[in-house]
Amino acid sequence: MIKRKFGERVRELRIRKNLSQEKFALQIDMDRTYLASVESGKRNISLENINKIANGFGITLSELFKGL
Amino acid sequence: MIKRKFGERVRELRIRKNLSQEKFALQIDMDRTYLASVESGKRNISLENINKIANGFGITLSELFKGL
Repeated sequence: MIKRKFGERVRELRIRKNLSQEKFALQIDMDRTYLASVESGKRNISLENINKIANGFGITLSELFKGL
Repeated sequence: MIKRKFGERVRELRIRKNLSQEKFALQIDMDRTYLASVESGKRNISLENINKIANGFGITLSELFKGL
């Protein structure tokens, strides 16, 4: 399911950057518990928040969705 | 702004496929007025609806976001 796949992808990229949920959430001005629920595949996240995450990783939206 | 860019991309792909808003909305089981507002950049569309659109075009999410 897409929410779960997206969450796993975000977690993978965050860990690859050596960032804690807390640190990354702070960096992109997102609530840490919200980010946690996104990574757990529980959120039907919106385009603007998806974009925030891509910007936080310094990648394009197309790259963020690669492999999904 | 991302909502506007995304809407333009959806419109571009739909027109390239020679589909009316009505026909495409019906095909992906989305309200036509909702699709129209997405294309106009007015909607902070959710991941599941973004995924519906990509499936409707028969492309990956990564391809849908190409160039944005």
